[in-house]
Amino acid sequence: MITEAALYMIPVAISDAPPCDFIPRGNMEVVGGIRHYIVENVRTARRFLRRCDPAFPIDECTFSELNSHTDLNEVSSYLNPLRQGIPVGMMSEAGCPGVADPGALVASIAQREGLKVIPLAGPSSILMGLMASGFNGQGFSFNGYLPVDDAAKAKRVRELENIAARTGMTQIFIETPYRNNRTVALLAATLRPDTLLCVASGISDPARESILTLPAAKWGGVRYDYAKIPTIFLISRP
Amino acid sequence: MITEAALYMIPVAISDAPPCDFIPRGNMEVVGGIRHYIVENVRTARRFLRRCDPAFPIDECTFSELNSHTDLNEVSSYLNPLRQGIPVGMMSEAGCPGVADPGALVASIAQREGLKVIPLAGPSSILMGLMASGFNGQGFSFNGYLPVDDAAKAKRVRELENIAARTGMTQIFIETPYRNNRTVALLAATLRPDTLLCVASGISDPARESILTLPAAKWGGVRYDYAKIPTIFLISRP
Repeated sequence: MITEAALYMIPVAISDAPPCDFIPRGNMEVVGGIRHYIVENVRTARRFLRRCDPAFPIDECTFSELNSHTDLNEVSSYLNPLRQGIPVGMMSEAGCPGVADPGALVASIAQREGLKVIPLAGPSSILMGLMASGFNGQGFSFNGYLPVDDAAKAKRVRELENIAARTGMTQIFIETPYRNNRTVALLAATLRPDTLLCVASGISDPARESILTLPAAKWGGVRYDYAKIPTIFLISRP
Repeated sequence: MITEAALYMIPVAISDAPPCDFIPRGNMEVVGGIRHYIVENVRTARRFLRRCDPAFPIDECTFSELNSHTDLNEVSSYLNPLRQGIPVGMMSEAGCPGVADPGALVASIAQREGLKVIPLAGPSSILMGLMASGFNGQGFSFNGYLPVDDAAKAKRVRELENIAARTGMTQIFIETPYRNNRTVALLAATLRPDTLLCVASGISDPARESILTLPAAKWGGVRYDYAKIPTIFLISRP
């Protein structure tokens, strides 16, 4: 198969489960034709490619890193191969690039120049958490990270709860994984008792996946340990 | 493989492209162990299963329909097999069940009873449109359908534009496909000239996919025909 000249937004695994369980076969055919990658983390990108296909010619590939250490003035040059008609792939650290990661910048540069951008299907913990939560999927917002400070965090949680109550839209957010347990406790203590809280943790990891929806009042009685496990939080009005 | 007793949220194809190009192989292994399905449309669900695996034992399966014609009092009984320890699958008309379709109701019943819900990875036109738009993926809202009436539609579009301008969150919405062209014209005429509009149409259909981001002012000069093609609309502040 010849991979068309485009910027491909390539989802990667969100757990240590075998990638082919969660990545469509068609993606790997596209990836087979790409030698230029923009990645959030070179090490995990190489590991992903190798896990998908042990014979993948990684040494023929270039990897340009896009993360908080990147000089943003250089990012545009990452698309130089595509400007010459050679496909480029974008992969983030986990899940779908351009969603909750720096990848959107690359897609925006490509769109501005009229370069073709093609998204591939794959796992998204935000969407998979929503699917399993039982919450409104006809209207929802992803709000990124909560503030770090506890008082600011509680204030933000109440804001999101009010939006959910007023609009009926599911409110989704994430937290740095080592703070997960503390955040569940804060949510249980901060939300109104009947507001529904879904904690979706370890999605797509058969050994650790846990997706549980309960009224906030009941979370105080749940035994859980989400420490260091990637987790999505969702709230909904009753 | 033995499919664990759970409600599986099973994504289906969003185009006529070969399903295995967009559906992970692992999903088909799970589906191989499921004989009870809750589906938005029996005909398309059977067709999807047959396209994924021509040998799939469709005649051994039960299909319960969940759509606007369904008596909502009956939906809970669709989970009876799961209450007896037998896995159940939920498939909507297109894409990820529970997102922009009635499937969330089934997941919410399961969650309320403490029945396990497992989401599978797959194509979502909402998320894939976002990935390719170049718009903010650290904060975004999906707002469902626009109002039908033109005046109400323009008012709602301005509301969403104001939210995007104020919060920086990407605003996503959909339209009944036969109204797509008219809606692009309305958006081009209604949005502020520098507001960015992405029209993501025919996602994952190699023959028809078109994902284009331009300032609203430029859409007036674009030749397009999105009539009857499933399309996602996204707006972003400049």
